[in-house]
Amino acid sequence: MSVLGVGSIAFDTIASPYGKVERVLGGSATYFALAASYFTKVRIVAVVGDDFASEHEQVLRRRGVDTCGIQRAKGKTFFWAGEYGANVNEAKTLVTELNVFEQFHPEVPAGYRDTEFLFLGNIQPTLQAHVGRQMNGAKLVGGDTMNYWINHTPRELVETIKVFDVLLINDAEVKALGHESSLPRAAQRVLAMGPQALVVKHGEYGATIFFREGAFGIGRHPFRAPALPIEEVHDPTGAGDSFAGGFMGYIASQGELNREVLKRAMFYGGVMGSFAVERFGTERLQNLTSEEIQGRFQTFRELTHLE
Amino acid sequence: MSVLGVGSIAFDTIASPYGKVERVLGGSATYFALAASYFTKVRIVAVVGDDFASEHEQVLRRRGVDTCGIQRAKGKTFFWAGEYGANVNEAKTLVTELNVFEQFHPEVPAGYRDTEFLFLGNIQPTLQAHVGRQMNGAKLVGGDTMNYWINHTPRELVETIKVFDVLLINDAEVKALGHESSLPRAAQRVLAMGPQALVVKHGEYGATIFFREGAFGIGRHPFRAPALPIEEVHDPTGAGDSFAGGFMGYIASQGELNREVLKRAMFYGGVMGSFAVERFGTERLQNLTSEEIQGRFQTFRELTHLE
Repeated sequence: MSVLGVGSIAFDTIASPYGKVERVLGGSATYFALAASYFTKVRIVAVVGDDFASEHEQVLRRRGVDTCGIQRAKGKTFFWAGEYGANVNEAKTLVTELNVFEQFHPEVPAGYRDTEFLFLGNIQPTLQAHVGRQMNGAKLVGGDTMNYWINHTPRELVETIKVFDVLLINDAEVKALGHESSLPRAAQRVLAMGPQALVVKHGEYGATIFFREGAFGIGRHPFRAPALPIEEVHDPTGAGDSFAGGFMGYIASQGELNREVLKRAMFYGGVMGSFAVERFGTERLQNLTSEEIQGRFQTFRELTHLE
Repeated sequence: MSVLGVGSIAFDTIASPYGKVERVLGGSATYFALAASYFTKVRIVAVVGDDFASEHEQVLRRRGVDTCGIQRAKGKTFFWAGEYGANVNEAKTLVTELNVFEQFHPEVPAGYRDTEFLFLGNIQPTLQAHVGRQMNGAKLVGGDTMNYWINHTPRELVETIKVFDVLLINDAEVKALGHESSLPRAAQRVLAMGPQALVVKHGEYGATIFFREGAFGIGRHPFRAPALPIEEVHDPTGAGDSFAGGFMGYIASQGELNREVLKRAMFYGGVMGSFAVERFGTERLQNLTSEEIQGRFQTFRELTHLE
C-alpha cells in the first residue's frame, strides 16, 4: 500500500559543531518521503520555486518517490538557515524565508486520492484539515504540528486534530497542547481531543505511543521504543519527519493495523530518525540498504530486550 | 547474599504540588536500604543524632534491615527541606542542615566486612574510598556521586571512581564528569576512569547501562531500561537511591553476575524508583508486596516488548 506525505520542501543551510552545509534539500515532506521510501510506495504534495532544479527532484525520484504532486510556483523555494551548538537538541534559527511556501495551498491530485495512508507534516492546521477532507477514505491519517500553531491557532488546531488518527509531536508540544506538566496526563488530554493514538517523541530517549482506550486492539499500557545513544549527532534537522516516515512507511507496508504493527512502527520510526541525524541534511537517508535498516532495528530491540 | 549501603540518614521536609510533609525519614541510605530490602539482606552504615528515635529505626527494622552499623552522634540528624514545582525534575532546596552528618566518618563494623555487595551513596569521595578499602573483598561495589563533588573535589573523585565497579549517576553528571556534551562519548570517558559499568539515570525516561569492553561477559551494546510514564509524581526525593537499592538488591539476590543479571537489575532499579515517587518520603517503599513489584516489572517489560 502507499503513503502520501504533505508538507514542505526547503533548502536548508545548517551549521553544527561537525561542519556546515549550504542550501541542501530539506523540508518535512522531503525527510518524510525519503524515510518512508524504504518501506512502501510514497507520494508527496508540496510546493517549490524556480530554484528547485531537476537534480533536487532526482534525490526523491532515485528513491522511487512519486513527485507529480509537487506544485511549482513563481519565486523561490522555502529557505531556512539554522545552527546547532553543543546541545544538539536546540536549533538556533538564523534565517526563515517562507517564499513560495507562504502561499502554499495543498491540493491532492485526483490520482492520489485513493492513497491508503496519509501524513500531514507540520503546516498551518487549516491546510492540514483541508487535505484531510480530500482524503477521507484513508485508512490512517498521521499528523504533526508545532508550538507555533499550538500558541497562535489553538482553535483551528483542535479542529484539525480530530482528523488525525495518530498525532506525532514531542514532549514539550504535548504538554503545551494538553496544558499539563505531567506527560501521561497531558497525553490523556490530547487523546481526548480525538486521535486514536499519540506518539510522543523524546529525542535521544526514544518515543512513547499512548493509545485511546480500545484503539487498535486491546491493551492497558503505552509502549516505548528506545533510541540508540548516538555518539555523533551531526545534524538533528528532520529527525522528527524521518521518524514519521519510518513509522507511517512501515505501517503502510503491513497488511493489518493493530497494536503490534504500531509498536514495530515505533521502532522503525526511531531507526530512520537515528540514521537521519548521522549526516547533514538528507545525505544518510538517500543511500541506505535494507540490511542497514534491519541491523539497526535489531540493535534497537536488543537495547531493551530481556532474555 | 547481602548488600551494605553507606550514605546519609536524614529528616526531610518536602513540599510538592501534591502536598507537604514535615521531618519524614529520608536520606540516601534509608531509600537504598528500603528498596533493596525486597530482594536481599541489607545492612547500613550511616550517622544519626539524638533526634533519631526508636520509631525511625523501626521503619528500617520492620523491613529486616540490619541497623547495627548506624552510628549515633551528639547533635541533630541531617535535615533537608525542599520544594518541587510543576516540573518535578527540579528540587528547590530551602534548608540544608548537615548537623552530625558534617563529621560523618563511616566505619564498617567488623561483622559487616564480609558483605558481598557494597553501595556507596553520595557522600564525600574520600570517605567513599575509605569504606571501599575496608571492603576490598566485595564482589561488586556500586557508587553514586553528584555535581558538587564533580566540581569541588574532582581529583579525589577520580581516585574514588577507581574503587567503583558500577557508577550510578544521571545524564548531567555523566556529561560534567566526562567533559562531553554527547552522552555516549561522555559515558566512554567515564568508563575509561575505571568502572566496569556506568548506569546513567534519565529520570522519567528510564536508565541506560554502558559496559566497559568485555566487562560482565560479551556484548557490543549498552542496555536501556525504560521507565513507566507515571501520572502522579508526588515526591521525586530518593528516586535515584531507590533505583540503586532495586539494582544492587536484585544483583545481590542472584547467584551469578553477568550482563543478563545486570539488565534485569536495571528494570528492578526502575521499578523501585517508580514506586518511591508515588508517595511522599519513603511511605510507598515501606509497604510493598512482591506481587506489586513483580507486576510492575512485567509492566515495564511490556512497555518495550515486541512479540
